[in-house]
Amino acid sequence: MKKYLAELIGTFSLVFLGCGAAVVSGISSTGPAGIGLAGISFAFGLAVVVMAYAIGPISGCHINPAITISMLVAGKIKTDDAVGYIIAQFVGATLASSVLYLIQSGSPTFVMGEWALGANGWGQGYLGNYNTTSAFLTETIMTFLFLLVIFHTTSKWGNSTMAGLAIGLTLVLIHLVAIPITGTSVNPARSFGPAIFASGKALQQLWLFLVAPTVGGILAALTWKGVFESAVRVNK
Amino acid sequence: MKKYLAELIGTFSLVFLGCGAAVVSGISSTGPAGIGLAGISFAFGLAVVVMAYAIGPISGCHINPAITISMLVAGKIKTDDAVGYIIAQFVGATLASSVLYLIQSGSPTFVMGEWALGANGWGQGYLGNYNTTSAFLTETIMTFLFLLVIFHTTSKWGNSTMAGLAIGLTLVLIHLVAIPITGTSVNPARSFGPAIFASGKALQQLWLFLVAPTVGGILAALTWKGVFESAVRVNK
Amino acid sequence: MKKYLAELIGTFSLVFLGCGAAVVSGISSTGPAGIGLAGISFAFGLAVVVMAYAIGPISGCHINPAITISMLVAGKIKTDDAVGYIIAQFVGATLASSVLYLIQSGSPTFVMGEWALGANGWGQGYLGNYNTTSAFLTETIMTFLFLLVIFHTTSKWGNSTMAGLAIGLTLVLIHLVAIPITGTSVNPARSFGPAIFASGKALQQLWLFLVAPTVGGILAALTWKGVFESAVRVNK
Amino acid sequence: MKKYLAELIGTFSLVFLGCGAAVVSGISSTGPAGIGLAGISFAFGLAVVVMAYAIGPISGCHINPAITISMLVAGKIKTDDAVGYIIAQFVGATLASSVLYLIQSGSPTFVMGEWALGANGWGQGYLGNYNTTSAFLTETIMTFLFLLVIFHTTSKWGNSTMAGLAIGLTLVLIHLVAIPITGTSVNPARSFGPAIFASGKALQQLWLFLVAPTVGGILAALTWKGVFESAVRVNK
Repeated sequence: MKKYLAELIGTFSLVFLGCGAAVVSGISSTGPAGIGLAGISFAFGLAVVVMAYAIGPISGCHINPAITISMLVAGKIKTDDAVGYIIAQFVGATLASSVLYLIQSGSPTFVMGEWALGANGWGQGYLGNYNTTSAFLTETIMTFLFLLVIFHTTSKWGNSTMAGLAIGLTLVLIHLVAIPITGTSVNPARSFGPAIFASGKALQQLWLFLVAPTVGGILAALTWKGVFESAVRVNK
Repeated sequence: MKKYLAELIGTFSLVFLGCGAAVVSGISSTGPAGIGLAGISFAFGLAVVVMAYAIGPISGCHINPAITISMLVAGKIKTDDAVGYIIAQFVGATLASSVLYLIQSGSPTFVMGEWALGANGWGQGYLGNYNTTSAFLTETIMTFLFLLVIFHTTSKWGNSTMAGLAIGLTLVLIHLVAIPITGTSVNPARSFGPAIFASGKALQQLWLFLVAPTVGGILAALTWKGVFESAVRVNK
Repeated sequence: MKKYLAELIGTFSLVFLGCGAAVVSGISSTGPAGIGLAGISFAFGLAVVVMAYAIGPISGCHINPAITISMLVAGKIKTDDAVGYIIAQFVGATLASSVLYLIQSGSPTFVMGEWALGANGWGQGYLGNYNTTSAFLTETIMTFLFLLVIFHTTSKWGNSTMAGLAIGLTLVLIHLVAIPITGTSVNPARSFGPAIFASGKALQQLWLFLVAPTVGGILAALTWKGVFESAVRVNK
Repeated sequence: MKKYLAELIGTFSLVFLGCGAAVVSGISSTGPAGIGLAGISFAFGLAVVVMAYAIGPISGCHINPAITISMLVAGKIKTDDAVGYIIAQFVGATLASSVLYLIQSGSPTFVMGEWALGANGWGQGYLGNYNTTSAFLTETIMTFLFLLVIFHTTSKWGNSTMAGLAIGLTLVLIHLVAIPITGTSVNPARSFGPAIFASGKALQQLWLFLVAPTVGGILAALTWKGVFESAVRVNK
């Protein structure tokens, strides 16, 4: 059970710190400038870096159902463990959004907006107003690249000291590109937490953040198994 | 005594560089844009990264009474050492605020504001105007997560090369979220230094930054001892 | 073939994430501030960090024809492999620009500007309006320094754990300086991808981004072979 | 001679990339926002990170006369080598400012301002308008802390893999605080390069950037030798 609790705490941290940075500090009306899209990107990605070194040795630090499903397809986790992981991830994300809601309620300017608490979305009225094709394509490709980095850096030839840093920095990168398009998910649990609080449009659009990251993750697992896992290491 | 001096210099550096970045460079009225909330976050967190690799081998680099108390609860430091550490931390923080006051006095625009020298606070008039519940909750949860990362990464299965980086980046993350709420403390000494200079509201509100981080740290110590310390490492 | 595919995916990632960050998130008209020149710099450089740890063990992670040519001059890659690498890099970059074009087409405000999709350029109308001498000098010196860091950090006395981080951070640095001058290339493939879509001025100015990085890379190879490769390591 | 050439190239890189980032990209009048004080801080600091891993094994990567003098006082370098290092550092910095001047001359908006090419300074008209006491105090304390981190992280109990990162991040931190006060030097060569081009006030104020960092460096050497070098390592 400890590895499930680790996944719960890890996913809690990712959603609480990532979405928290976005909604509390993204824009600052007084004092120093808010952290902006770059600061939000580092918040999500560094949360993964930090959790990789903290809970990685216990659970592998998936903290993302798309990663767990991709690992299942690649034969790197057992089915019952995968189910336990995914439940823990959704619970952790939901708890994070609850606590964030509680904290935000203590701000005199807080209103429950259409995409409150850092919910993902797209289309007219969502940041860059990108259409559904762009949103789906972006989430799929980004999750594909994210998982490919994970498979390579945690393989037998990867550098185990730097793997956690490389994986988390990949999530920084993905956010540096994709926030105006979808808010950046590549993680069904991260989208689920805020969506059930924001409801409305965030909940209607949740399907894309369940499907596209899963598709991208499965494609990465197949590419890894079919192509790279058996690659000969040419560089020392 | 050398480890106490190391703690003093480490806490001095954290407060001098972190609060210094906030008050000197947070907002820039001429030339390039100020470092903003993101730059301030990196200043506090990177100060911990740097000190972890510098004085970590000598004192363990607590530079934070909440960490020392949490380590005491977890049985990782002796009581007399803990007392020495905490005194050194408060002295170091006070020295840092003194020097910062001296340097700021050399600026023609410096005025001793209500929350001068980077003092922590909350409520009406403090950045995001969050209420006491949000402030207490934020400081407690953030210190809890901070200490949990510290216990995990410095455990027998943690990566000792990356622990200092992971711990410092956790402080970056905490700041990326919490500055608009409390200015971000998670460290009683860091709050004490500026408060005794700013006095007024900063001093009246000091209690929260003594209590909440301590509570969070103790909860983390109990969670670590009760749950994770005996976890079986499932990942290689 | 797997190493060529690795180079293709690596170059795709560099151009897709780097140019993607610039065109999607560089400027934000609503919500949090865009990532700016600093965020774009981190996007390009962290893409190299991440790919170095992912595909480095398979192909060496050149993902840049100027690096491959420099390695060829230094005798560190065979001619037929170099040809395969360079083809893969140009294909990867072109694919990246294609996908980025597809995604940008889903934005209601997208227009195919003179230097669309993150194309490099210089002169009147390009960011800082620097002249041709500044552009050529900058691209040559920056690629020279970039390759020198690569030769040193991947040498027998380099720290193999940190080499990928140091190399990628060098690309961050180069971008922190040079975006207003040329948009920063130091990589013929990275310039080629957007240029064939933007056509017009971007295509007319492509020659500089093929020639200057190659010159800088060859100079670095000669400096390395002639001076530093045989250096006695004085520090432990 | 190779180690002197390494120091020359390293100091060239620090001044060219650090000052280059400040003057080329600090403020951006068109397109994405300039890198600001935070981006400039990362440029200077990451230049040290990168050079530490590149030329560290050859020369120890001082690239700063205050470091070389401090190392001389601590008995870690021979006098004739120290002289060679310092000459190479001043030559490298001067070359960097020459090349930066050449590149800036290709910009239609370039004017040789009072503190051109990234020159250090203080007082009325220099960024935060801090007085001489604040400037001297800041440069001395910052160099003291910088050297203390260097002595600790490169000692027998330091982590040799992370030392270069910790040292460079210390320079990031120092810049995150001190740019509005002095532009941040902690390095006589870095101040010398731009000053001889800017002449005028920059040259008149050069003395402080020769004296204060040297004083800070010597104090750190004495502290290290007198207190910490013989410390018992209490943490594993």
